[in-house]
Amino acid sequence: MGKYAEFTAFRQKLNKKILEQGNLEIKRFFALDGQVYQPGVLDGKTKELLGLSASLVLRCDDCISYHIIQAREAGASRAEIFETFGIALLVGGSIVIPHLRRAVDFLEELEHPGPG
Amino acid sequence: MGKYAEFTAFRQKLNKKILEQGNLEIKRFFALDGQVYQPGVLDGKTKELLGLSASLVLRCDDCISYHIIQAREAGASRAEIFETFGIALLVGGSIVIPHLRRAVDFLEELEHPGPG
Amino acid sequence: MGKYAEFTAFRQKLNKKILEQGNLEIKRFFALDGQVYQPGVLDGKTKELLGLSASLVLRCDDCISYHIIQAREAGASRAEIFETFGIALLVGGSIVIPHLRRAVDFLEELEHPGPG
Amino acid sequence: MGKYAEFTAFRQKLNKKILEQGNLEIKRFFALDGQVYQPGVLDGKTKELLGLSASLVLRCDDCISYHIIQAREAGASRAEIFETFGIALLVGGSIVIPHLRRAVDFLEELEHPGPG
Amino acid sequence: MGKYAEFTAFRQKLNKKILEQGNLEIKRFFALDGQVYQPGVLDGKTKELLGLSASLVLRCDDCISYHIIQAREAGASRAEIFETFGIALLVGGSIVIPHLRRAVDFLEELEHPGPG
Amino acid sequence: MGKYAEFTAFRQKLNKKILEQGNLEIKRFFALDGQVYQPGVLDGKTKELLGLSASLVLRCDDCISYHIIQAREAGASRAEIFETFGIALLVGGSIVIPHLRRAVDFLEELEHPGPG
Repeated sequence: MGKYAEFTAFRQKLNKKILEQGNLEIKRFFALDGQVYQPGVLDGKTKELLGLSASLVLRCDDCISYHIIQAREAGASRAEIFETFGIALLVGGSIVIPHLRRAVDFLEELEHPGPG
Repeated sequence: MGKYAEFTAFRQKLNKKILEQGNLEIKRFFALDGQVYQPGVLDGKTKELLGLSASLVLRCDDCISYHIIQAREAGASRAEIFETFGIALLVGGSIVIPHLRRAVDFLEELEHPGPG
Repeated sequence: MGKYAEFTAFRQKLNKKILEQGNLEIKRFFALDGQVYQPGVLDGKTKELLGLSASLVLRCDDCISYHIIQAREAGASRAEIFETFGIALLVGGSIVIPHLRRAVDFLEELEHPGPG
Repeated sequence: MGKYAEFTAFRQKLNKKILEQGNLEIKRFFALDGQVYQPGVLDGKTKELLGLSASLVLRCDDCISYHIIQAREAGASRAEIFETFGIALLVGGSIVIPHLRRAVDFLEELEHPGPG
Repeated sequence: MGKYAEFTAFRQKLNKKILEQGNLEIKRFFALDGQVYQPGVLDGKTKELLGLSASLVLRCDDCISYHIIQAREAGASRAEIFETFGIALLVGGSIVIPHLRRAVDFLEELEHPGPG
Repeated sequence: MGKYAEFTAFRQKLNKKILEQGNLEIKRFFALDGQVYQPGVLDGKTKELLGLSASLVLRCDDCISYHIIQAREAGASRAEIFETFGIALLVGGSIVIPHLRRAVDFLEELEHPGPG
């Protein structure tokens, strides 16, 4: 199983377990976390890049992977994603680099999935 | 002197002092920090909002003020700035709120400058 | 005006401005941020101390002040607050100390308000 | 070897190596890190939840696992742990979610250990 | 009262109040925080610069001011402090810049104290 | 393949991919990130320890591994590295401990490489 499939499977399985517990505030937070990226005065692609920029400087690998998937689906080009990488790198500094390496590795698999 | 004028004056005075020291890497970093927000495949407004989103989740008041100024000059509307606030709030959590309050206070002064 | 009154006045004024903008996700986040500290299987005092511990290690002065107010109202003693400080100090390290100083300064004013 | 056993084995082996080096400040810090969670005016369970809340917002997986183990041993219920999760999620934002997923995965193994 | 005198006075007054509370772990942490910068295999100046580098990337203004005072007393030159600034800037990114500005402002006052 | 070889291979492969994309600001940042550790008024060993201290408190495992390699090559002793660990532990708190464990594990492999 490739990185993409593994990431998605674990994410879905555990999100389900978290929501099953029935904690109301956690459930509402998860719902809100979906709504905030819906197109508004800013389009969906821009919103995903904003989420990506925030995730990069906070150095959250899973969040980075997630927003790369979403940004690609919303039509972001490779060059647009790299310009977002560049801004996050300048804002967040060299500690962002290891996450950038894993982000590019993930992006490559997304673009050239193996035989699975 | 209002918040905007005070912020800009201190910023310019100390940037000058930092660059005068002649440390080469610091000078290059400052140059690079200007270049990365120049329009590319992403336009200038989007780049400023990406910088704003990153600054909000890292809770850097001066960086937030700076990118609000730049985003406004690049044509970002109040609603676009608030959608950026919303994403940063969800990503970064309630610790972003005090910075959001100061950001809105700064934005208000920018839009309705006092008699000076 | 003392630190407590100043903090509360700015907080209320800007929260009002933020909510007036009408961004739905921000409004929902603010509501959720109130609900999560309501008594549940954990009592209100414990929840406020959990919020205080999280705010201390994330070094958010306004959040610390807010949870000190709330914890005191929920019946937390000075010694309980200091044990929370101790845990946050060990978890977060010496960079927490400046925030601890401001927290104790705030706590002192809360306990011994000046003539106003 | 399950996640719990692997975590504990690596933790013990490397703690031993760190302490063997004989650096006095590191040894004292490790001792202090144990003392701060001893019952005081706050009971042991509350202290572990305070450590858990701090670890969640700082997004330290190993610290989260450790405090989940300790909180369970001190008598914390699943619902109490989830209310702590909820507060940390609101304070720390959506970047806490990947750590929450791993925390729930760890908690599940703790409650339903495999055949080993 | 200048920035330096104000910083030192507040620091001493509140440290005293914190230690008076008699929380044992907090007192031990404060003691340990002094010991770790004592000369060892690394000399005192290098240790202060290590503390400065860590404080800069964690963006703790009071910690930065403190280590600048200590590094100067241990014989660090302006150029050595600026090379430390350069490393912290690269590691921590542009969000370090506002703290760098305040650090240079503090350093200037330290070198050219006003009439008091 | 040991941890050291794996780390180095992934690092080189992905750095190459990142630079191939041709984003100018990212390329310049990478160049600057090399220059800042070159000997200046501070020698190379001290600069690597400053990078290590910053990486430890920011809890970046790959950055820690990299600066351990570089510090060893620049002649830093085990005791000097542990004193740097001690300072970072005090500044950054107990959340640094898991990274310290992995750092010591990495250091051990560096000093006693397996048969490969």
